[in-house]
Amino acid sequence: MKGEKISELTTNRLSVYLRCLNELDAQGEASVSSDAMARRFHMNSAQIRKDLANFGEFGTRGVGYNVKTLRDHLTSILGLDREHRVGIIGAGRLGAALADYYGFRKANFTVAAIFDSDPAKIGNNLGEVAVLDAKDFSQAARSYMIDVAVIAVPAEAAQSALDLVEKAGIKAVLNFAPVSLRASSDIKINSIDLTTSLESLSYFLASSEDAR
Amino acid sequence: MKGEKISELTTNRLSVYLRCLNELDAQGEASVSSDAMARRFHMNSAQIRKDLANFGEFGTRGVGYNVKTLRDHLTSILGLDREHRVGIIGAGRLGAALADYYGFRKANFTVAAIFDSDPAKIGNNLGEVAVLDAKDFSQAARSYMIDVAVIAVPAEAAQSALDLVEKAGIKAVLNFAPVSLRASSDIKINSIDLTTSLESLSYFLASSEDAR
Repeated sequence: MKGEKISELTTNRLSVYLRCLNELDAQGEASVSSDAMARRFHMNSAQIRKDLANFGEFGTRGVGYNVKTLRDHLTSILGLDREHRVGIIGAGRLGAALADYYGFRKANFTVAAIFDSDPAKIGNNLGEVAVLDAKDFSQAARSYMIDVAVIAVPAEAAQSALDLVEKAGIKAVLNFAPVSLRASSDIKINSIDLTTSLESLSYFLASSEDAR
Repeated sequence: MKGEKISELTTNRLSVYLRCLNELDAQGEASVSSDAMARRFHMNSAQIRKDLANFGEFGTRGVGYNVKTLRDHLTSILGLDREHRVGIIGAGRLGAALADYYGFRKANFTVAAIFDSDPAKIGNNLGEVAVLDAKDFSQAARSYMIDVAVIAVPAEAAQSALDLVEKAGIKAVLNFAPVSLRASSDIKINSIDLTTSLESLSYFLASSEDAR
């Protein structure tokens, strides 16, 4: 499968399998069948077998998959055995919370630097990470070997932040600004939109009240 | 449209339109055509007209939509003119960051209380919000009039947190735990999964490297 792209939905499922395997390993389980994994984590066992067969992983009949071997294999497929270096753009509340976000470290993502254009913030530290001037982004991205950018600026500043990222040649972006962004097709942008999630809950509650 | 459910994709687009209208209003624009809105915010003008026609909103030919009127209408459709009261389960890093999250207030969501089962945390305050004992969730949910629960606990504790929420009769949930949850069908769960987003970026970078 080297170099061959699999779908986003499949990689998302691989992420979930990996978490299950980490949990099973922590509990001292040496092997697991697709059926047991499906039951335990509310998934579909045929789907599990199909997804893993893509990668040449075939469980042993009556025994299942070896937990550690499969975990290491998925870790490598997802690229989680290599360190990624993150530059966060925006040193506001969200940027500060993310600088300290445990999930980054757990996924082998190291926050290397934070960028802002506010002179009052530049030169400070957030935790152990320095706040740098956003206008030096390209140069700093090279010297800090940043390969993932996190956009944590207000909606109206997000497109210019992405333009900086694109100029610096960074190809992977996690976007928290609630706005749709334009980028060239070789950049992957994953967006996390809390506002839309909240507003859809609000709509759900409002329409349920109206229905009563 | 009262009581009649529209799709999640449509409400998500209404959220985006609302943000655009807020931006236009802040810039002093009194009216906007679907074409101008589409150009400016990279959307499809026919889609905008279709979505808004669902709600009896028809722009005036040559003038467009009245920005303030349409904004107020969308605010009401999305239920954002009513206050929602949030209970956060989990007083760890993420819970603490969310207790202080500006986006809640902006969407008319008030964080009423935070719950945890750690005796060292119970009784403290996070910002202005008290940390209560998770075992009193049902009673506190009633007295604090909580109608939205936020699950900010580790994956292995998420299902029990959701069980508490369900017992308390709360119907809207924002879940940050990276795990699939079982609930009865009248509960709406929106999940925000940062880990999966990160791992999909990691896979993208790994597979691009392999392809080179």
